Amino acid sequence: MRIEKDLLGEKSIPKDAYYGIQTMRAIENFPITGYKPDYDLIVAFIMIKKACALANIKTGLLDEKIGNAIIKAADEVLGGKFLDQFVVDVIQGGAGTSMNMNVNEVLANRAIELLDDKKGNYQIVSPNTHVNMSQSTNDTYPVAMRIAIINKNIRLINELKSLEISFLKKAHEFDDVVKMGRSHLQDAVPIRLDQEFEAYTDAIKRSTERIIREEKGIHIINLGATAVGTGLNTTLDYIELATENLREITGIPLERAKHLVDATQNLDALASFSSSLKNLALTLSKICNDLRLMSSGPRCGLNEINLPPMQPGSSIMPGKVNPVIPEVVNQVCFQVIGNDTTVALAIEAGQFELNVMEPVMCFNLLQSIEILSNAVKVLRERCIEGIKANKERCKEMVENSIGIVTALLPYIGYEKATEIAKETLASGRSVPEIVEEKGLLSKEKIEHILSPRVMTEPGIFTEFIKNSVLKKK
Amino acid sequence: MRIEKDLLGEKSIPKDAYYGIQTMRAIENFPITGYKPDYDLIVAFIMIKKACALANIKTGLLDEKIGNAIIKAADEVLGGKFLDQFVVDVIQGGAGTSMNMNVNEVLANRAIELLDDKKGNYQIVSPNTHVNMSQSTNDTYPVAMRIAIINKNIRLINELKSLEISFLKKAHEFDDVVKMGRSHLQDAVPIRLDQEFEAYTDAIKRSTERIIREEKGIHIINLGATAVGTGLNTTLDYIELATENLREITGIPLERAKHLVDATQNLDALASFSSSLKNLALTLSKICNDLRLMSSGPRCGLNEINLPPMQPGSSIMPGKVNPVIPEVVNQVCFQVIGNDTTVALAIEAGQFELNVMEPVMCFNLLQSIEILSNAVKVLRERCIEGIKANKERCKEMVENSIGIVTALLPYIGYEKATEIAKETLASGRSVPEIVEEKGLLSKEKIEHILSPRVMTEPGIFTEFIKNSVLKKK
Amino acid sequence: MRIEKDLLGEKSIPKDAYYGIQTMRAIENFPITGYKPDYDLIVAFIMIKKACALANIKTGLLDEKIGNAIIKAADEVLGGKFLDQFVVDVIQGGAGTSMNMNVNEVLANRAIELLDDKKGNYQIVSPNTHVNMSQSTNDTYPVAMRIAIINKNIRLINELKSLEISFLKKAHEFDDVVKMGRSHLQDAVPIRLDQEFEAYTDAIKRSTERIIREEKGIHIINLGATAVGTGLNTTLDYIELATENLREITGIPLERAKHLVDATQNLDALASFSSSLKNLALTLSKICNDLRLMSSGPRCGLNEINLPPMQPGSSIMPGKVNPVIPEVVNQVCFQVIGNDTTVALAIEAGQFELNVMEPVMCFNLLQSIEILSNAVKVLRERCIEGIKANKERCKEMVENSIGIVTALLPYIGYEKATEIAKETLASGRSVPEIVEEKGLLSKEKIEHILSPRVMTEPGIFTEFIKNSVLKKK
Amino acid sequence: MRIEKDLLGEKSIPKDAYYGIQTMRAIENFPITGYKPDYDLIVAFIMIKKACALANIKTGLLDEKIGNAIIKAADEVLGGKFLDQFVVDVIQGGAGTSMNMNVNEVLANRAIELLDDKKGNYQIVSPNTHVNMSQSTNDTYPVAMRIAIINKNIRLINELKSLEISFLKKAHEFDDVVKMGRSHLQDAVPIRLDQEFEAYTDAIKRSTERIIREEKGIHIINLGATAVGTGLNTTLDYIELATENLREITGIPLERAKHLVDATQNLDALASFSSSLKNLALTLSKICNDLRLMSSGPRCGLNEINLPPMQPGSSIMPGKVNPVIPEVVNQVCFQVIGNDTTVALAIEAGQFELNVMEPVMCFNLLQSIEILSNAVKVLRERCIEGIKANKERCKEMVENSIGIVTALLPYIGYEKATEIAKETLASGRSVPEIVEEKGLLSKEKIEHILSPRVMTEPGIFTEFIKNSVLKKK
Repeated sequence: MRIEKDLLGEKSIPKDAYYGIQTMRAIENFPITGYKPDYDLIVAFIMIKKACALANIKTGLLDEKIGNAIIKAADEVLGGKFLDQFVVDVIQGGAGTSMNMNVNEVLANRAIELLDDKKGNYQIVSPNTHVNMSQSTNDTYPVAMRIAIINKNIRLINELKSLEISFLKKAHEFDDVVKMGRSHLQDAVPIRLDQEFEAYTDAIKRSTERIIREEKGIHIINLGATAVGTGLNTTLDYIELATENLREITGIPLERAKHLVDATQNLDALASFSSSLKNLALTLSKICNDLRLMSSGPRCGLNEINLPPMQPGSSIMPGKVNPVIPEVVNQVCFQVIGNDTTVALAIEAGQFELNVMEPVMCFNLLQSIEILSNAVKVLRERCIEGIKANKERCKEMVENSIGIVTALLPYIGYEKATEIAKETLASGRSVPEIVEEKGLLSKEKIEHILSPRVMTEPGIFTEFIKNSVLKKK
Repeated sequence: MRIEKDLLGEKSIPKDAYYGIQTMRAIENFPITGYKPDYDLIVAFIMIKKACALANIKTGLLDEKIGNAIIKAADEVLGGKFLDQFVVDVIQGGAGTSMNMNVNEVLANRAIELLDDKKGNYQIVSPNTHVNMSQSTNDTYPVAMRIAIINKNIRLINELKSLEISFLKKAHEFDDVVKMGRSHLQDAVPIRLDQEFEAYTDAIKRSTERIIREEKGIHIINLGATAVGTGLNTTLDYIELATENLREITGIPLERAKHLVDATQNLDALASFSSSLKNLALTLSKICNDLRLMSSGPRCGLNEINLPPMQPGSSIMPGKVNPVIPEVVNQVCFQVIGNDTTVALAIEAGQFELNVMEPVMCFNLLQSIEILSNAVKVLRERCIEGIKANKERCKEMVENSIGIVTALLPYIGYEKATEIAKETLASGRSVPEIVEEKGLLSKEKIEHILSPRVMTEPGIFTEFIKNSVLKKK
Repeated sequence: MRIEKDLLGEKSIPKDAYYGIQTMRAIENFPITGYKPDYDLIVAFIMIKKACALANIKTGLLDEKIGNAIIKAADEVLGGKFLDQFVVDVIQGGAGTSMNMNVNEVLANRAIELLDDKKGNYQIVSPNTHVNMSQSTNDTYPVAMRIAIINKNIRLINELKSLEISFLKKAHEFDDVVKMGRSHLQDAVPIRLDQEFEAYTDAIKRSTERIIREEKGIHIINLGATAVGTGLNTTLDYIELATENLREITGIPLERAKHLVDATQNLDALASFSSSLKNLALTLSKICNDLRLMSSGPRCGLNEINLPPMQPGSSIMPGKVNPVIPEVVNQVCFQVIGNDTTVALAIEAGQFELNVMEPVMCFNLLQSIEILSNAVKVLRERCIEGIKANKERCKEMVENSIGIVTALLPYIGYEKATEIAKETLASGRSVPEIVEEKGLLSKEKIEHILSPRVMTEPGIFTEFIKNSVLKKK
Repeated sequence: MRIEKDLLGEKSIPKDAYYGIQTMRAIENFPITGYKPDYDLIVAFIMIKKACALANIKTGLLDEKIGNAIIKAADEVLGGKFLDQFVVDVIQGGAGTSMNMNVNEVLANRAIELLDDKKGNYQIVSPNTHVNMSQSTNDTYPVAMRIAIINKNIRLINELKSLEISFLKKAHEFDDVVKMGRSHLQDAVPIRLDQEFEAYTDAIKRSTERIIREEKGIHIINLGATAVGTGLNTTLDYIELATENLREITGIPLERAKHLVDATQNLDALASFSSSLKNLALTLSKICNDLRLMSSGPRCGLNEINLPPMQPGSSIMPGKVNPVIPEVVNQVCFQVIGNDTTVALAIEAGQFELNVMEPVMCFNLLQSIEILSNAVKVLRERCIEGIKANKERCKEMVENSIGIVTALLPYIGYEKATEIAKETLASGRSVPEIVEEKGLLSKEKIEHILSPRVMTEPGIFTEFIKNSVLKKK
């Protein structure tokens, strides 16, 4: 053990630890979730430290030898080393000061080693004076949170685009599957399965575009804001340099906020990004509900499609297979919606120059992105791609339905259509049968009108108008 | 009373009523909130009916005499007549069928009168066959909801822009008010009141832009989709015509959805619009919290600003004045956030080709827009515009604070600054006093460093670097 | 018009108005929702004023002549007069001061008239000094809110009890309807429709009990707390008297809070009551979802039950009838869940000695109770009571299902059962048919095992064990 | 590696793994959160398996040798062995089937070993036939979830009781600290710090009682319900036995649900329990907000109390200490409120005989209990217990306040009090000073009236009435 000291006194630190006294205090103060910092957040922080060290060297504030040691230490972490040294809880008080200090201490101690001295000898490299130079938790934490979100979001966007393609492929595959359309869960008029899958495609596409658009809002950063956004104890030159460095290191088109005071206290861009995740969840959940309804059965449900079986459904019921993948996606959606509530509460709780509730926001946003990425991937690979349509079953239901009488309306009028509907329901027979029997339309005409394409798309104008009974009135 | 008949039987209708049997059933079925349809929703519906009637005449389906009577009836309603005839509850089952039929019945009965016949004689003009021609609740209701939202939103956007200007004006006014910046509610370093008001300006501006952007998403409509989005019993010609007519009548750049099936079942654009209102609410609530904190006191609080007194605060405490305007805005924000929860639940509940939960969405979205508009207006007129800064009080707090020692860091170093901080806290004296006494800096230097501008903006590069103690290390 | 004056200046008041200057200011300050105070809230406030006036007379503080005039005025309002004089918006700043003053002013002006003087002559009876004597908004508003909730809740409880009975009756009616049980929307094993309706009965019963239990928590009141709960400017004698009077006038077993400071600042009992409404909403929504699923069809859905038709479902599809009543109930549930979010946010926003967000809480809680009462009533009268089971359809699905093979497990073993299941699925035939054909069990045995009661309840012990193939292993 | 087989085919399993093929499938199907099952959930499951094995042996269904091996294996896990073998994700589809099968497989394989055979040889002991005998996921998972919640809740209740005591102790300690009471964040009338801490004590106490009460609701279990609640393939004897065994093994007074169908599909007791956690969070959050407000400063805030410093607050501002403990508690509260949203969505999503969303509920409820326990503990140990009151500062604010004029009302009347208030505000002087100067009351009288006890409690009746100016009117 080694002894370290701060404003509040001394503490013993494990000799091998790269973190120091402030991390130690955080471990004691925040034994909350037991979850350690997300990898993407660590990486983001390290990149910030590197960008700032470079800027501080350039402006002449930071001794080059010290600065280079910090940069080398940062590169080592980016290379995968010391990841077990980031140990503070994901939910923490102090607006992320503990996370920032954990990073500062690890880099400082590693830099000290690189300068051939012993961990804890902060005269050589100080976590505060050198690693944190020109920075504050109040600018580094929110910037790190943003970079982590942006980086993690790459995978979500990719997964969503793959899902969109997957739905589209299925739409092409199901082009000839005519099925009963339903509103209010009641039989309505026919639709094609490809139209439904196209609708899913469109909905996912729009959700994805919204997430991409909202992500742009969080490209704007407050690096250099220091304590309250006024940039106290920094210079504009440093701010520009540090931001530029960070842009290069991260490869993200980060932009300096026009007003750093605004950018330090207002996290509305994160609220809006969170909403875009929630709204994706609403869309995904509806789609999964549809998939579970369509695949209900096999004998006592709709049974219009079969989801690929992923695991035995029951130990007690032989042969039962459950829609486990849509079910897990529904649950992920509920989690994401709940997380959005948490984020909203945290956003609303900002006061004056700072929102100290950033850690809980960060935890929830990163979790939402992560579990959505995972859920979208399993949904595609383990469900959508293997869906099979029960074409015959779908067709039989349409033919047996009363709803198709609607398609005859322009040809036989509302009154006759209603009569047919009633007789169909009472007799248990089919609409075409009765229409033909009554000699209202020829068999060929009926077959044409009730053919899949004709029933599931707007009419050809001239033909439609020519035939319309309405017009004759 | 007159007798009307439908699929389910007969009902007596008040002789003077322009609505008919289906509206009557809705009154009985949905005695839920007691709230009648929003004016903007009625107007939107009427404009749709007119647009469709024009299209139906043009395509030759609708008899011109009947069509013109419907259009004339519609124009009368748009002119302000018969508004008391729209009587169905805002929350209703049937996905808005009752609202649609209420409109159909009123227009039909008025058109019948215009054709010199008696209300209820639907042989002349039928609510279904003629007024609802080529339409379904499943396309008219969602389109009407969108138009109503868009129209109501005009006022919200205007109010927000006025609020933004109002904050900006105040920022200019408070340009010379230096005050204590706070993070964690703890004294941090100085800031200027104009910087805070500029931050509010920025936050409102971004919220407004998001609402405008999300509103665009709901310009896309599914008119012509009919029952399930397939456009059954319509033609593409009609769909184009009706949409074009509606664009002209409303003056809104409405756009036909590429896929009507998608647009009929997926209401994600409304979820996203609702989120933009919620996120405005989060921002507004934070601002109001700040205003209430800043104006706390007068003797035992911060007392940095005075809100204009709007009403006596207490019957028991003489002279007490409360921040009633920010308080009412906070509550409106909570209502809007709760409404967004309702909207989200409704969106998630869509099934297959339709989301039948539209009425509750519509009610909540229109209410949110309405109360936000009202709240933003009173906030501006009855609070922001009359705010006065207690400049002297702000200045005293800064001068008396320990936090300003931070500004001396580059000149005296961290160790000396810490000593000064401790001595200040212990002695109850002020930082400049002690620094001067100790001969660390000249009085002029101290005054310069601690002058408002210098303390509340990033440093001038060369001077900063030249002076920095850090650099000397 | 008459002129009135307060701390902030003068205002013109309509000559006939019973309300005065402070109500007038509130009208100008809070043009938010346009909704006027709930009748139950007005009544509750009036009863408080009466209870306090009586106590003030008794303790000797209030002149009897003035006191009696106030009481007479109160009785007139309780008798239905002057209800149009309560005009402040339901959402207001000032923690309900405007509502309290609206009541104080109406009673004062009416009392003045009763004492043969002119409205506005507050020398005779003062809204503050006399009507509000020994009171503060901070005790009267929360107490009024509680009484209003309790009174409005009577109807909800009654409606819920009726609904419970209604479900139970249906359970008895459906005692012989065996149907397919479903988990994961997949066919599981048979169940009886009465068991499902009994489950609904139980769930409603528990929800009702919770609401009753949570209502008890709000029987505890802080009357006499005055400004911050310390009871400043009142005496314990007055507090006891006023509470006792209020108990008698309202007929509610109200109880004085042990600590008035606690009771003034903490509204957790309201949060908890709101949760009990939300949790009812979750239960109701699930039941309505089930009803909509069970009645889906008629040809392309489950079609196990028929809901009574309440209105034509579609203008375009002849004969379509939609489950409009469950749908409106679902929407009411979403509204109540959203309202609970609003209440929770308002509760969390309490600060120090008072929660100033009471008005928005009050509005949402009263609305939730009201619309739940209405929704529960229409659900019972217009849906549950008229439900018909399609017994034959249910039976056919069970007989045609593969799931019933599970009931044979103890008699033929898991391996054979699995074989039968596979053959059934592949052949399109039925389980009993194949089992009989294979000679595994006699026809009588099969019929017994697959009879409704035997399949839908735990086995008779000795017979079960005797037959079990498992045991033989 | 060994090969295992199920309904869907073969899979390789690591040779040393105690889990089997179904766990393996779950690992592949649900790579969602990366979080492994909670220890309390594992333990709960194992206790169920033991209870059921004992019941199955007793009823004669389960071979004693096999049964005893299962029980021995269960005891080993309860003793802490094989905990790393429970590897399925906390969020999973299939309503927890994977978790149940993970448990079944681990126990089966360990039992096989105990019977001297090789893992995977399920002829000896089968996960389904033997370990899961008479059970279904649909009864074991919800029962396990309940037991886990109940067990984890013990610590939360203990922590809450300690917190309550801690607040009460502080109330006693602060008995003589008179401070300014505030409503609307505006100076109101004096209060004592002990009254505020007593209010916190009361609020925590009520929240605790609610959690205890709601926990009772989840003592009711559906063990023996099997697939859909009908108890198919079990006997009442078994159900009674298994429940009795489980009661003994867990030490929890579990109760068999009256209707197992109801208990299987309705999880309202969990919704209600979740609400009780949410409502605790609302209360805790308000308290933490108060603590942060009261300790704001030190120079530019209220500075009424000092929280014990837990860690340096800032790297850039010397000497700054932040309220990190209340801040972390606020964030935990936001998380719990968000989790309640997730739970509510999951509850609402139940369909027919089962709610398949149990895993996400379970995860959120266990997390909420866990983080609340941790947060309440750190709040007590690292904040409440070390709070110091700034008695002098509090006293000065009261003496300097205008609000105390309210206490003089009964003695000098409203008009004079208002005059005094105005003069105090304008002059910057104090109330007692001006009252004395004007000769309105003697110095002794003033001192008495404005003494802490007199100002912060209801008056002594006779004295109050005797002095009252009101009465004289």
